[in-house]
Amino acid sequence: MPEKIGFVGVGRMGANMARRLKDVGYPVVAVYDARAETAQALGQEIGAEACSTLARVTELSDVVFTVVTDDKAMVTIFAPPKKADSLLKNAAGKVFVNCATISPKMHVLVEKCCQKAGAESLEGCMASSIPQARDGKLYLMCGGAEATFNKVRPILEKLSNDGQTMRYIGAAGKAAEVKALVNMVMNINTAALAEGLGLGAALGLDLTTLREVFSQTGAASRVLQTDGEDMQNRDHSCFFSAEHAAKDSGIALNLGKAKRLNLPLAAATLRQYQRMVKEGLGHLDKSGVSELTIKGRGGKGLKKK
Amino acid sequence: MPEKIGFVGVGRMGANMARRLKDVGYPVVAVYDARAETAQALGQEIGAEACSTLARVTELSDVVFTVVTDDKAMVTIFAPPKKADSLLKNAAGKVFVNCATISPKMHVLVEKCCQKAGAESLEGCMASSIPQARDGKLYLMCGGAEATFNKVRPILEKLSNDGQTMRYIGAAGKAAEVKALVNMVMNINTAALAEGLGLGAALGLDLTTLREVFSQTGAASRVLQTDGEDMQNRDHSCFFSAEHAAKDSGIALNLGKAKRLNLPLAAATLRQYQRMVKEGLGHLDKSGVSELTIKGRGGKGLKKK
Repeated sequence: MPEKIGFVGVGRMGANMARRLKDVGYPVVAVYDARAETAQALGQEIGAEACSTLARVTELSDVVFTVVTDDKAMVTIFAPPKKADSLLKNAAGKVFVNCATISPKMHVLVEKCCQKAGAESLEGCMASSIPQARDGKLYLMCGGAEATFNKVRPILEKLSNDGQTMRYIGAAGKAAEVKALVNMVMNINTAALAEGLGLGAALGLDLTTLREVFSQTGAASRVLQTDGEDMQNRDHSCFFSAEHAAKDSGIALNLGKAKRLNLPLAAATLRQYQRMVKEGLGHLDKSGVSELTIKGRGGKGLKKK
Repeated sequence: MPEKIGFVGVGRMGANMARRLKDVGYPVVAVYDARAETAQALGQEIGAEACSTLARVTELSDVVFTVVTDDKAMVTIFAPPKKADSLLKNAAGKVFVNCATISPKMHVLVEKCCQKAGAESLEGCMASSIPQARDGKLYLMCGGAEATFNKVRPILEKLSNDGQTMRYIGAAGKAAEVKALVNMVMNINTAALAEGLGLGAALGLDLTTLREVFSQTGAASRVLQTDGEDMQNRDHSCFFSAEHAAKDSGIALNLGKAKRLNLPLAAATLRQYQRMVKEGLGHLDKSGVSELTIKGRGGKGLKKK
């Protein structure tokens, strides 16, 4: 019998992963979200119980995916104050797959808490976005005990192109480190593209031509494909928000600081995304960084948070 | 009869373009370089006269390609002090194709000087490197009068994949603007990659795995393909030097300054390449920026200038 699956944190990513696993035949039995109505809506849609406690998710499930916001949310669900509701109540034998972008050291801490409760945990760091979650084509980087990885591997394969876009990276925390680096470089490339298009616009160049030249030269990048046209057209509907970009660049910079590295581009990029947040543009997609560099924009006419 | 071709500035790029045009049947009759022995060696190799004056190049040629170092060199060859040797002596009817990466306003100035002398000029900005020059596969962006472009088009096509990688951009200076933007974004992406690999190395991650993950995610870029492995292996043999990267980022930042744009990533990148020059690493390929970000390197053990 396939494992019963629970989901904690069913925002855009979590909900689509849950839909995907249901589509391929897994019983998704329990969902939970800090916003109860979000969990209720998804529960109704896919026929899962919208649980009112974390402990109830664990009770119903064999494998629980967590896709929460940040380190703080991870502490809330795995290591709350004594007697508070927790995912680790009667959790012996359960497996927790933690997919949020959180700090590497939090993965190590969660692994320890799970071990103490007789449970197992695995990092399932995702370097993809919402459509890939829905289609089971996430790029998944896994960290933790290799035995735990092998135990849930068949489920993870259904989320990652039958495993073609999944890699086992190493011990707990290592996948989060790689993920932080991916997003750090992606965010820099995005902010770089925004500067290129911003200067091009100021010079009166045709941005469609400019993007085409970029795509055929040393300026080409994945973010040019995913974000270039959106920057030109100011289509900043959110796949990966500026707020998240700021958070992830911050995680990478903290890792760098601990190693006493000088990372001036990563730092400049973090400041750009922090500026977006400050100016009420943090909810825009990361492509919205072009609002800061294309003259006369600055978010004008766009919905602010 | 095919036009007789001259070359002024036969460093790595110019020499390979000359070889290519000779290979496809054009008579390359005249070569000139500020370093006389460089011109002599190439002249001997391809059977061209190594001219001792600029005026002699113009005398022998119908079309002259210039591939010199910078704005200052352009002034020296096109607008020297009175009575000094000049490419524009008896230049009526000749066409000059200017391929160096120089400032947009210099292209406008050179066009004016050429018009005064009864000659024509065209920007042929290149966004490629040495192997592409040799193989006739340059990415060529042209600026200037469209009639001039059409006149030399058959020659330029032999340098640009039969024209597949050639674009007419607009008036004189416009192609240089696009080129400056390409290199600005390329340089930022390169410095970004160096930060990603630098932090990865500091965290003890396997850089081959890390590059592979980058290549499949939002961190992917053209410079990851061209420079990633070289950064890992410290192979900084020069295709596009750090010195040139600093120059090109500087051109773009000056354009930005004139438009009162804030381009923090471009500025941070310029500072990295300036630091390389200051530390005696300016002759390394742009990939050498990783010497600044991968701990314990800093150019140690590499040949300094």
